[in-house]
Amino acid sequence: MTSKANPALPAVREPRWLVDVIRPTLIVSQARCRKNIETMAGKAAASGIRFRPHFKTHQSAVIGEWFRQAGVQAITVSSLKMAEAFAEGGWNDITVAFPCNLREIRLINQLAENIRLGLLVESLPTVELLQKQLAAVVDVWIKIDVGSQRTGITWADTAAIVSLAKSIRASARTRLRGILAHSGHTYGAAGSGEIIRIFRETVERLQKVRAGLSSAGVEDVEISVGDTPGCSLVSDFKGVDEIRPGNFVYYDLMQLSIGSCGWEQIAAVVACPVVAKHPERGELVIYGGAVHLSKESLTDEHGQPIYGRVAMPTDAGWGQPLGGTCVARISQEHGIIRTTSEVVAKVGVGDVLLVAPVHSCLAADLLGEPQII
Amino acid sequence: MTSKANPALPAVREPRWLVDVIRPTLIVSQARCRKNIETMAGKAAASGIRFRPHFKTHQSAVIGEWFRQAGVQAITVSSLKMAEAFAEGGWNDITVAFPCNLREIRLINQLAENIRLGLLVESLPTVELLQKQLAAVVDVWIKIDVGSQRTGITWADTAAIVSLAKSIRASARTRLRGILAHSGHTYGAAGSGEIIRIFRETVERLQKVRAGLSSAGVEDVEISVGDTPGCSLVSDFKGVDEIRPGNFVYYDLMQLSIGSCGWEQIAAVVACPVVAKHPERGELVIYGGAVHLSKESLTDEHGQPIYGRVAMPTDAGWGQPLGGTCVARISQEHGIIRTTSEVVAKVGVGDVLLVAPVHSCLAADLLGEPQII
Repeated sequence: MTSKANPALPAVREPRWLVDVIRPTLIVSQARCRKNIETMAGKAAASGIRFRPHFKTHQSAVIGEWFRQAGVQAITVSSLKMAEAFAEGGWNDITVAFPCNLREIRLINQLAENIRLGLLVESLPTVELLQKQLAAVVDVWIKIDVGSQRTGITWADTAAIVSLAKSIRASARTRLRGILAHSGHTYGAAGSGEIIRIFRETVERLQKVRAGLSSAGVEDVEISVGDTPGCSLVSDFKGVDEIRPGNFVYYDLMQLSIGSCGWEQIAAVVACPVVAKHPERGELVIYGGAVHLSKESLTDEHGQPIYGRVAMPTDAGWGQPLGGTCVARISQEHGIIRTTSEVVAKVGVGDVLLVAPVHSCLAADLLGEPQII
Repeated sequence: MTSKANPALPAVREPRWLVDVIRPTLIVSQARCRKNIETMAGKAAASGIRFRPHFKTHQSAVIGEWFRQAGVQAITVSSLKMAEAFAEGGWNDITVAFPCNLREIRLINQLAENIRLGLLVESLPTVELLQKQLAAVVDVWIKIDVGSQRTGITWADTAAIVSLAKSIRASARTRLRGILAHSGHTYGAAGSGEIIRIFRETVERLQKVRAGLSSAGVEDVEISVGDTPGCSLVSDFKGVDEIRPGNFVYYDLMQLSIGSCGWEQIAAVVACPVVAKHPERGELVIYGGAVHLSKESLTDEHGQPIYGRVAMPTDAGWGQPLGGTCVARISQEHGIIRTTSEVVAKVGVGDVLLVAPVHSCLAADLLGEPQII
């Protein structure tokens, strides 16, 4: 953002913080974001467990500092590259919550020599190859599938988990830290009751896995869980050793739709310049498309896709979502907002509208460093 | 790509060009890509019209040079930022095929002073604001909606088009170059016959607009069209002055599904390391998710989403798509490949699979500079 003002525009009343926005820009409300961080950190502290937030959502050094100020010392990331970036930023206890990618062994070794690096494994071949090639000690978490069917050993397969745990403990380079799950199936849950039920079930299943390991002589095994819906709706994290939610830092329409946050907790929106008006079809065209918002969508009550909800800028940030208004279609750079005739009449070409994204992790990944207000 | 080899891997037979691939990487076949460029350039030349390819698909200086070698001098981009990058790379006739974003007036002026810059307008307020603030001459194209209902003045609204054309001609800073359309509705077409019909209809409609302008005394108006499906299936571009296709440089599964290319024309795939195997459910997990492939999807014959088709690497590039195999689910960094037990047995953790993306423009935007083979 280098432009100091927008001389081409009519003298519209526009919040001062919008003046430098000339193209799609991620806007983060510091007040909301810090509140989200403090709420989650507070719940973890009250439960006496470790808070290892997932930094893949924001990927921002500045927002990382807010976590540090809230007492966070250990973090989660989704790639070794991201681990490298945060290690450079002074974080020294990082779990890469993604199945260990053996092709990055050089980076794994480089990180392992400098920080406490946690890796996820779920199969014997990976463990054996790691053990052959590791030049330093790493923490290892066994990835457990508690029902989401993405990755991990099925929680009920005690024999496989015990065998893997023993092979990890057989080498001094791979330090078995614990068992780890991501209950991604909370995203498909039908409301808060279902989300809480899945969280409880996840903890129970991991407790059973730990008991099975203990019976086989494998002790000192931590339990790590981590989806935002579950961690948002449950207050007492009894039974686990750490939580790893990430999306809660910004929340988004997906979280709103499944009941894990309210509109006033959404801390990030995408500022999008209006570039065309189509009153005859009740539509506005914004500079804000798939390369800014991603193609993640929700479905409205008529079965039509929604790529974002829209709010007007205010001095403090943004207002309530505009009724009868959504980002209805999207292409590479264009977004088409379907709205009311009142909104079409009120908004001019050159104005900026704020779009709450469906999935803030993807929008943030696409837009890079946010503008903080 | 800095790793020289992958010491952690078993001695698998792997093409030499794959050795440095350690994370999701866009792989471009130079032979296929140059052939796609030459075919389109040849058809434009045979029709005696200007070829102004859209560079938003590849966004690559190297591939831009291949176009230059094929005789291309004028290009299209989808943002002023992209125009800035290619202007720095020596391109001096650039159309930004996106409704003029008035908030970037400083960059517009900077570009207009240095290159022949083309802008799209579709409303009087935009033209008036532009004329007030322009510090140099720009080419102006009136955006016409020929049926896709994204942006532009409806082709049948002669009065509005004539009025806008006259106001553009009223200032020396805005040089009316022509009328421009993007028939994006070819992407929803039911096969090649329908695509060709839409192309012909687009040209007819733009001819009628030009005739209307001529009757009102507005002469010397060029016609610019540009979707990849139409430009791929039509051989004779009679009736237009330039074509602006972009996606054809790589093609993708979307183009394959609507009939505008064959598998052997797809010139870009995403190399994805395999990070986990789940034989019990016939699935492989790859490092390759929404931040690499985008969430663009097609629907298979059972109504299920497909995020990519999968091929094995070969010394020359890649083979045919594997039968009964697709990227069936996707999250931020993970892709889940549903496949046959034969493929699961054959592929190991640490191997690389090649995924043909659904929409190559989005995958290329996400992955940055490709590895060229």
